[in-house]
Amino acid sequence: MAGPQTRERALDMQADEDTGDGLQSSHRMLSFSDALLSIIATVMILPVTHTKIYPEEQFDTTIRKLLATKIAVYLMTFLLVTVAWTAHIRLFQVVGKIDDILALLNLACMMTITFLPYTFALMVTFPDVPLGIFLFCVCVITIGLTQAVIVGYAFHYPHLLNQQIAHSAHKAAFRQHILGIVLRGPALCFVAALFSLFFFPVSYLLMAMVIFLPYISKAAGWCKDRIRGPRDPPTQSLEFFTFDLHEPLSKERVEAFSDGVYAIVATLLILDICEDNVPEPKDVEEQFHGSLVAALGAFGPHFLAYFGSFATVGLLWFAHHSLFLHVRRATRAMGLLNTLALAFVGGLPLAYQRTSALAQQPHEELESIRVSCVIVFFASIFQFAMWTAALLREREALHPSARFGGQEHALMFAKLALYPCASLLAFASTCFLRRFSTAIFHLMQVTVPFAFLLLRLLLRLALAVLRALRGLLARPVGPELSDQGAADARSQLLPAPC
Amino acid sequence: MAGPQTRERALDMQADEDTGDGLQSSHRMLSFSDALLSIIATVMILPVTHTKIYPEEQFDTTIRKLLATKIAVYLMTFLLVTVAWTAHIRLFQVVGKIDDILALLNLACMMTITFLPYTFALMVTFPDVPLGIFLFCVCVITIGLTQAVIVGYAFHYPHLLNQQIAHSAHKAAFRQHILGIVLRGPALCFVAALFSLFFFPVSYLLMAMVIFLPYISKAAGWCKDRIRGPRDPPTQSLEFFTFDLHEPLSKERVEAFSDGVYAIVATLLILDICEDNVPEPKDVEEQFHGSLVAALGAFGPHFLAYFGSFATVGLLWFAHHSLFLHVRRATRAMGLLNTLALAFVGGLPLAYQRTSALAQQPHEELESIRVSCVIVFFASIFQFAMWTAALLREREALHPSARFGGQEHALMFAKLALYPCASLLAFASTCFLRRFSTAIFHLMQVTVPFAFLLLRLLLRLALAVLRALRGLLARPVGPELSDQGAADARSQLLPAPC
Repeated sequence: MAGPQTRERALDMQADEDTGDGLQSSHRMLSFSDALLSIIATVMILPVTHTKIYPEEQFDTTIRKLLATKIAVYLMTFLLVTVAWTAHIRLFQVVGKIDDILALLNLACMMTITFLPYTFALMVTFPDVPLGIFLFCVCVITIGLTQAVIVGYAFHYPHLLNQQIAHSAHKAAFRQHILGIVLRGPALCFVAALFSLFFFPVSYLLMAMVIFLPYISKAAGWCKDRIRGPRDPPTQSLEFFTFDLHEPLSKERVEAFSDGVYAIVATLLILDICEDNVPEPKDVEEQFHGSLVAALGAFGPHFLAYFGSFATVGLLWFAHHSLFLHVRRATRAMGLLNTLALAFVGGLPLAYQRTSALAQQPHEELESIRVSCVIVFFASIFQFAMWTAALLREREALHPSARFGGQEHALMFAKLALYPCASLLAFASTCFLRRFSTAIFHLMQVTVPFAFLLLRLLLRLALAVLRALRGLLARPVGPELSDQGAADARSQLLPAPC
Repeated sequence: MAGPQTRERALDMQADEDTGDGLQSSHRMLSFSDALLSIIATVMILPVTHTKIYPEEQFDTTIRKLLATKIAVYLMTFLLVTVAWTAHIRLFQVVGKIDDILALLNLACMMTITFLPYTFALMVTFPDVPLGIFLFCVCVITIGLTQAVIVGYAFHYPHLLNQQIAHSAHKAAFRQHILGIVLRGPALCFVAALFSLFFFPVSYLLMAMVIFLPYISKAAGWCKDRIRGPRDPPTQSLEFFTFDLHEPLSKERVEAFSDGVYAIVATLLILDICEDNVPEPKDVEEQFHGSLVAALGAFGPHFLAYFGSFATVGLLWFAHHSLFLHVRRATRAMGLLNTLALAFVGGLPLAYQRTSALAQQPHEELESIRVSCVIVFFASIFQFAMWTAALLREREALHPSARFGGQEHALMFAKLALYPCASLLAFASTCFLRRFSTAIFHLMQVTVPFAFLLLRLLLRLALAVLRALRGLLARPVGPELSDQGAADARSQLLPAPC
């Protein structure tokens, strides 16, 4: 009887510590915010995919321009939401615990962020009217002020702060610093809002600055370091060692945000299928003589495209998941590359829509297939680049097994290189075999999942061969070197086209 | 220098342990699955909300019937996906670690689940054609077989299993048990598929059985216990103590699934806004003489409804979040009530669409407002019921601070009772003040967030008063009793209508 009681007592004590005074660890609120932000970031692809292109229209300049502007809106929204998300990460690295007031303030902040895509839609539909940019600025200022209130509240009740900051002697400096981060965007937007009233092109310029500010300031800092030479470690270096405001990405939140994007992209597709591809009873009666199977047969390419796209999204998630298993810490470069990869993943419903529209518009076939290949290629190559960025700072960013010469290094390489190679190959072959481009694309979508399964088997085979070889060569080779050898040998088993 | 290096060494060792042999903790894969499942569960509300009702049509029988069937599809899909999700929880309580093969198998399983809503849509559109139910059965069988393969694979490589099962003497019994759980639905569906070929009404009956099977079997088990009297603890009770296959809900996954539903519901709304409420440049020119502000003014009620709905969803999430902070363990009854609450939360976009359609159809006003109130009421009352269910087994299910007499008990009561009371009040007042029903509803949406903020202040006020009273009464009242007194006093500070 004593066992369970002791266990319960321990749980009770933990509960008292956590929730006794209305304080909460912010973990769940952050997951919820990540989910909201990732959905908002990807939602703007829908107006792009739902652009009506009628069979009689050629893929002419007007439609190209329309599509291009919509894609621009999508990319801008995506980047902007990721900027807001980065600021949110920083904010809640400073604020370690939340209470009800902070949770409600955070919800208000999220509500304002969800309105941003609409202001973008206005900007694009009415490029000559300054109302869109004005509303955008109002939103950003509201977000900034809410976040400033959060900072003020947390510094007023220091038990809400991150432990390290709460006990730091430089608390005021921290507050200044984080307020600066939170408010510099809104300050720019305030100026932009003023300009929008009489000369709005300047507003667009300022808005672009808000989006690229983190990257610009990072680049400026890097240049300054280069000019000044390697800077001395600051006096409070110990304090900054584990709490570095200049490296604002926590691995967990990068994972949560990415999961949200992959999940919503995978399911946006079935949403379209459920809405558009259920035949009308009247049509079935008239066109297919009452045969539902025949009517569904007409939608066949849609289903094929759906499963192909889901497999692509799923496997890209799988590659991301495999990579992040070996990531110890996400550097800022990795964060940027991840954002770009995700932006292209968000474009996959477009690829789906392009390929499933083939049935109606065979003369667009080639172009659609190529668009799809390009999107898949960029989505996967940025993932690969993320790994490369991690390898450049491998001691800091990667677990040992994925580093050069590590146990999982070759497998990781193969996993991440599979989609870039396959999509490149498909793109290249559409140039030579124009007539079979659809077949090639579907072949790629079907074979890649099996390739992922085979990858592991191939590796096992290679390892078995290597073990046999190692037995033959006996002891002269040290373990360090033989691991390297194994990695090299495994690299040679990769698909040829890389 | 020693500090960082030791830390790094420790990280290295941890990494080796986790990923050295290609094994992975399944945490992130489960979050991803939860996100996918929650989105799929809620997606089917979209065909309901997108049902076109033209102003000239009365809200007549045909449309009522159409709406009713669509809502039935939505609820069935939702329940079915939660059944699949429950089975998934059980499965990955047995399988503790994953490798690449399992991750890919899980993706295949998810892909099949995402196709289920489509089969439901087919069933409803063509109730007399057995193809929909046949496809449904094929999907369920595929899911079951994939999960059986996962079980078989995990038991073949026992290091993938949950530690307790891997070291258990009853491993074979566990395998039988989990295979039974995973395959009983598909077995029923196999029979249903056969029946669908010649007499499909039986298939529908069998399908309903698949959905309600877990609840039926639970009820049967409960009845058996009642008849037999309290059963003796089984011999392997120690083993079952922390690993109970009959209590299949892990708190983390309930939270993750709920977060997904709340997040997608909150953002489904902005999706509609962005697609439908951006005015056409041509219309602005013709109808509003080029004034974009005037054109947006026409959409005013939509924006109001959007912010109101987001606030409702956000605050329901907040109540859920507050509740689960104090939950130690989710019992099955709580799981069922949570599912029902979420199903109604998923219906909130419908409430949004109803209230935002008011501008076009003033004669439907009253009915729309009532539908909204009913949805909000049920979504919140099931949350409240979940808390009641937790209180019935409070030692097991709740942390001490939320139990009867606990520190946070009264606050929790107030938080969870706020929305049921407010929506009931709004509904009741539409009966007396028909003409002001819209104003009343919007008033409710605006005041409730402030009530949430005030709740804390009121409680603080009450606590200050109580502390003063306690000072006056000195020591005669023991701490246990005075806490109870505080709880009672606080209950009296709740809004009147409860």
